[in-house]
Amino acid sequence: MLNKSSSLIKKCFGVVNKNDNFKYEVLNDKKIGILTLCNPKKRNSLSIQMVKDLSEQFKDIAAQDYASQNYAKVIILKSEGTVFSAGHDLKEIKELQDKNAHEEQKQLFQRCANMMAYIQQSLPQITIAQVHNFATAAGCQLACSCDLIVASKSASFSCPGVKIGLFCSTPGVALIRSMANQKKAFEMLVTGDPISAQEAYQHGMINQYVENNEDLEKETFKLAEKIASHSGETLGFGKQAFYKQKNMNDLGQVYDFASSVMAQNLRIEDCVEGIKAFTEKRHAHFKK
Amino acid sequence: MLNKSSSLIKKCFGVVNKNDNFKYEVLNDKKIGILTLCNPKKRNSLSIQMVKDLSEQFKDIAAQDYASQNYAKVIILKSEGTVFSAGHDLKEIKELQDKNAHEEQKQLFQRCANMMAYIQQSLPQITIAQVHNFATAAGCQLACSCDLIVASKSASFSCPGVKIGLFCSTPGVALIRSMANQKKAFEMLVTGDPISAQEAYQHGMINQYVENNEDLEKETFKLAEKIASHSGETLGFGKQAFYKQKNMNDLGQVYDFASSVMAQNLRIEDCVEGIKAFTEKRHAHFKK
Amino acid sequence: MLNKSSSLIKKCFGVVNKNDNFKYEVLNDKKIGILTLCNPKKRNSLSIQMVKDLSEQFKDIAAQDYASQNYAKVIILKSEGTVFSAGHDLKEIKELQDKNAHEEQKQLFQRCANMMAYIQQSLPQITIAQVHNFATAAGCQLACSCDLIVASKSASFSCPGVKIGLFCSTPGVALIRSMANQKKAFEMLVTGDPISAQEAYQHGMINQYVENNEDLEKETFKLAEKIASHSGETLGFGKQAFYKQKNMNDLGQVYDFASSVMAQNLRIEDCVEGIKAFTEKRHAHFKK
Repeated sequence: MLNKSSSLIKKCFGVVNKNDNFKYEVLNDKKIGILTLCNPKKRNSLSIQMVKDLSEQFKDIAAQDYASQNYAKVIILKSEGTVFSAGHDLKEIKELQDKNAHEEQKQLFQRCANMMAYIQQSLPQITIAQVHNFATAAGCQLACSCDLIVASKSASFSCPGVKIGLFCSTPGVALIRSMANQKKAFEMLVTGDPISAQEAYQHGMINQYVENNEDLEKETFKLAEKIASHSGETLGFGKQAFYKQKNMNDLGQVYDFASSVMAQNLRIEDCVEGIKAFTEKRHAHFKK
Repeated sequence: MLNKSSSLIKKCFGVVNKNDNFKYEVLNDKKIGILTLCNPKKRNSLSIQMVKDLSEQFKDIAAQDYASQNYAKVIILKSEGTVFSAGHDLKEIKELQDKNAHEEQKQLFQRCANMMAYIQQSLPQITIAQVHNFATAAGCQLACSCDLIVASKSASFSCPGVKIGLFCSTPGVALIRSMANQKKAFEMLVTGDPISAQEAYQHGMINQYVENNEDLEKETFKLAEKIASHSGETLGFGKQAFYKQKNMNDLGQVYDFASSVMAQNLRIEDCVEGIKAFTEKRHAHFKK
Repeated sequence: MLNKSSSLIKKCFGVVNKNDNFKYEVLNDKKIGILTLCNPKKRNSLSIQMVKDLSEQFKDIAAQDYASQNYAKVIILKSEGTVFSAGHDLKEIKELQDKNAHEEQKQLFQRCANMMAYIQQSLPQITIAQVHNFATAAGCQLACSCDLIVASKSASFSCPGVKIGLFCSTPGVALIRSMANQKKAFEMLVTGDPISAQEAYQHGMINQYVENNEDLEKETFKLAEKIASHSGETLGFGKQAFYKQKNMNDLGQVYDFASSVMAQNLRIEDCVEGIKAFTEKRHAHFKK
């Protein structure tokens, strides 16, 4: 049953891009994109090249017009092999460390961090990390930088940099902003120990814990489909406002901002249709 | 048993205010107010009129002198029917959308948001949302804007605006500030799906989950009574400082503020009595 | 078995400091310090003297050179008796209240708060509160101000100031920044009621809940040992950056900061060794 549905999913996808590090496919009729890290030999490391290519891919995804064949509303980010992503390539870091090149070092971390920030703050698509494997250091940061996380039994999350003397400070930025239990997040950083998907769920870091690995793809896809049934324009508009308001402190200021956002939202074509359909007691037909 | 105690509660209440949308009663000897939305036919919508009337009611509650018959320390907010509150009245929104009246639209959302902010930042009373029904969109925001939430099995919380193309941006402000699991809050906004009271408890959004609907009123009242046994002046003073410090980032700054607050608190008459009673090993008799 | 291991732990410790309020010991070969509040008759109150002495002790701990006999990477903070700490000494507070000395009152709270802030923001050591007893008011604040908390069945946490008319505003600062469920934190402040260790774990406030009191010391020590196996310099460097980034709102700004931190981290000697050891597939030998 699963294989049948799985192969059904597969055959409807069009491959948009493929290189040594990842492939990007779009299921056109569902408007769901699947970005798969596929360099398991290198443990799907966020090497300088990988970050460069991924950053371009995200920008390309964001640039697709609603009418484009390759337009997607939701992106599922997953990876092949036993490692979701091992984070930075330590060989590259060691080279820069040996050269004592402070600016280049900072740039390496900054470019990776920029990609993470881009996913939340600029990419209009809703991103879901689908994790069945080890998400480590900047790999854990990548999962946490997605809007949503679904993980299965064999998944684990860790920030083990402290074990090699390199505290996971950039991964910590995303970790602490994803995890409800703040002391648990700090524990991960100072012990370097992994937590299981079940623990991640318990401590308020992920959206869904899937008991059987076999059900992970199905459950993630179900979530993606549900989201992609809504207006892409509304989703992108709402997502951007969400992360802006999340970072504001003053309640008066944030409500002033959010009230403007609501009024602007009313001018979105799909919102006009949505409210009209609701009052006419029929299904809405979103264009975007 | 329950009915007896329930009717006992009822007969001691004095009705302070009643209109088509809600009634407000005060249990004088307990200093507990009960605000009941009672327009189930209109799904207790936060219509322009409802928001106007409720805002005035909250201001009236805040203005009561400690000596007044109608003074309350704790407000329980509940509602009649299967819907706690369905949020904004979509007919009103559609009218403003059709008129393309941006300023009026913003004002509609802003006035509702102002009421929500008032409950936390200005109302000295401790508010408890008692939810056994559907709290939807701005109705979910209203529950989250109360200081505390007690909900029973049949309760559910949702931000379904995305389904009609109108992302729940203002409800999201309150939701994300109430819910520990931030990715779950975002999931609610992009799927539009409801969560049960049990899930809301699990994800760190509510104070108490009551398994049996029959026990909801009793449990909420027990909590209200416990709080109302303390000094109303201390509660109001502490509540105001709480939301101020919660929004401050710098730990040095927040501790400077909170230390001043503690010193000011010592001058409250009920605090003088409270500390005196403690050292004399007797019960405190609070005046306010 | 437990007693044997427990006595084993004991005999390797060197007592560094001891007064009427606490003792400080260092297990030299593990680089773990144990700070024990030992004034159970006064319920380990954070009296003016206790705060003064503790503040000096923390500064002394921070000042130890890596090569010092008394250098520790991790500090376990625990206490003797049934009360972890009862918070401020109410007799001292009453005296200042009677004198109506606003500045002195503020100073009392401020000095205690400064100590709490120092633990997180300035002390390079990783601190673990080991709690088997009542952590009350500023005593609860002290536990929450430690980086990590391990608590056992008999532990409880409360902010009961409201019962004597003195809202726990300074403890609330630490409480709300430790506890995932924000409405639960407010409930503690307005009811004054305690929560058990199990509830504290459930609501995302502590790292570990130990079912049997007998296992508390062992479990806490295991956690401390794991952390102390890493480089003290990396831990201290990472901890300081962690609390700085935690308080920043703008994601662009925080990633700019954290990327610099990562680049600086690469220059730490133990990080050079750590990355070298990793690439050479051997254990790292940290010097600090």
